Amino acid sequence: MTAEDSSTPTVRLRAVVRYDGTDFAGWQIQPNAWTVQAALEEALALIAGQPVRVHAAGRTDAGVHALGQVVHFDWPASKPHGRLPVALSRMLAPSVQVTHLAVAHAAFHARFDASSKRYAYTVHLGTSRDPFTARYAWQVRAPVDAARLHELAQALVGTHDFAGFQCAGTEIADTRRTIYEITLTPGCLIGPADAAQHWTLTFHGNGFLYKMVRNLTGTLVDVARGKLPEAILHTRLSSPGPYDGFTAPAHGLALLAVEYPPDDAGTPPATP
Amino acid sequence: MTAEDSSTPTVRLRAVVRYDGTDFAGWQIQPNAWTVQAALEEALALIAGQPVRVHAAGRTDAGVHALGQVVHFDWPASKPHGRLPVALSRMLAPSVQVTHLAVAHAAFHARFDASSKRYAYTVHLGTSRDPFTARYAWQVRAPVDAARLHELAQALVGTHDFAGFQCAGTEIADTRRTIYEITLTPGCLIGPADAAQHWTLTFHGNGFLYKMVRNLTGTLVDVARGKLPEAILHTRLSSPGPYDGFTAPAHGLALLAVEYPPDDAGTPPATP
Repeated sequence: MTAEDSSTPTVRLRAVVRYDGTDFAGWQIQPNAWTVQAALEEALALIAGQPVRVHAAGRTDAGVHALGQVVHFDWPASKPHGRLPVALSRMLAPSVQVTHLAVAHAAFHARFDASSKRYAYTVHLGTSRDPFTARYAWQVRAPVDAARLHELAQALVGTHDFAGFQCAGTEIADTRRTIYEITLTPGCLIGPADAAQHWTLTFHGNGFLYKMVRNLTGTLVDVARGKLPEAILHTRLSSPGPYDGFTAPAHGLALLAVEYPPDDAGTPPATP
Repeated sequence: MTAEDSSTPTVRLRAVVRYDGTDFAGWQIQPNAWTVQAALEEALALIAGQPVRVHAAGRTDAGVHALGQVVHFDWPASKPHGRLPVALSRMLAPSVQVTHLAVAHAAFHARFDASSKRYAYTVHLGTSRDPFTARYAWQVRAPVDAARLHELAQALVGTHDFAGFQCAGTEIADTRRTIYEITLTPGCLIGPADAAQHWTLTFHGNGFLYKMVRNLTGTLVDVARGKLPEAILHTRLSSPGPYDGFTAPAHGLALLAVEYPPDDAGTPPATP
């Protein structure tokens, strides 16, 4: 029995969650694996004294990091939630932390209400290794010109049917999405400021299909390193899918932020 | 028998080494422990086919990181060293890497020739935890004003006898050192750019005594959080030592760079 289907009065809370995905088998709860959802639900259940189901905006895959994942859950109205951030911080492993917590309106849904998301993908374009970035960047040893990567990426901006960039395993009726912007900045998203030959692609869009950011990155790098012709970008943009190319590894990806319509914000977030 | 005391002709090489100190028992080789020196010497010995002794500019303690440690060693003249960076990169663990390698003059000494060094110490001044910085920042939960930390640090700049900031265990005749500058910048030296409430103190000086940077930081934080009076800075600057205060933990510290007189540079460094 979860708080949702019980008759206990509840208040809907919204939280921002930050995690190092290295040691997690992804967001979603599953048997015999350590997941972010399981970590949060276990901690919340211990504090609430009853099961609490947590819903995330983006169900990140194993190894994917998050700086600004957004979740919602229903909290027993009889239990004060003011000290919840502090209690969670102590109970959760250091690798997953809640950075903001606020009361949301009763119908707020972290996933369905999201108006846009930002993901970052870091590539390490060099043959040397960096002791500090191996867990946060995909190292591409073949010569790749960063400026070319940025130039190629611009073909993906706009509204397209991204079915050809979606991995099999999901049933989504409408595979059209809009990418507002793809930027390229020097450096590793997570790592020392002096990390050489690291570049971070940031994707801002109204939604992303299953493994879409990793597939877009995989194709961009394959074209930039001359393994595939530039035309493949357009071929895949007009393909019914599923994606049949290289999926960039999970550890280079991070969910940066989830955005909501202004009137969906609930009360202002409280920093723990 | 090392290359140094054999009669084999050798060439002196100088390298810049970068390591995540988390899993190392420090720089210096010791029985039954995994050290940076052991990792380098084992890899070099396998490539050279004979023992190679490595000398570092700064013998960092267990847990201390390095972005720009400098070392020297003698390499058998009969073995080409052009491919050494690539061979080392493959042979070394990802947590320790050689970023530059160059021929030095025959008398170059990484430690004795150093004219100045830069160390960075990152403090996390907040009660929340960050999944990405726990290995690279010392979390101080008591309220500390960062501006106050910077202001206090300025009393340490200049030429002083730092015996009172040196830990016991070393025999150094002259304990006078000059700190040229102490700066404070927002953010974690190693971690995500958005790490909140993180501040990095950078120390630039002509030399640092045993655990001196960690002791200076420990005292600065203890004064800034009101645990000790400001006068303790002057008391310790005029004390014969050893240091009797709090030593900031190793994991917040990183050796940033080692500088040499211009005429001591040897050939320009080659990036692998």
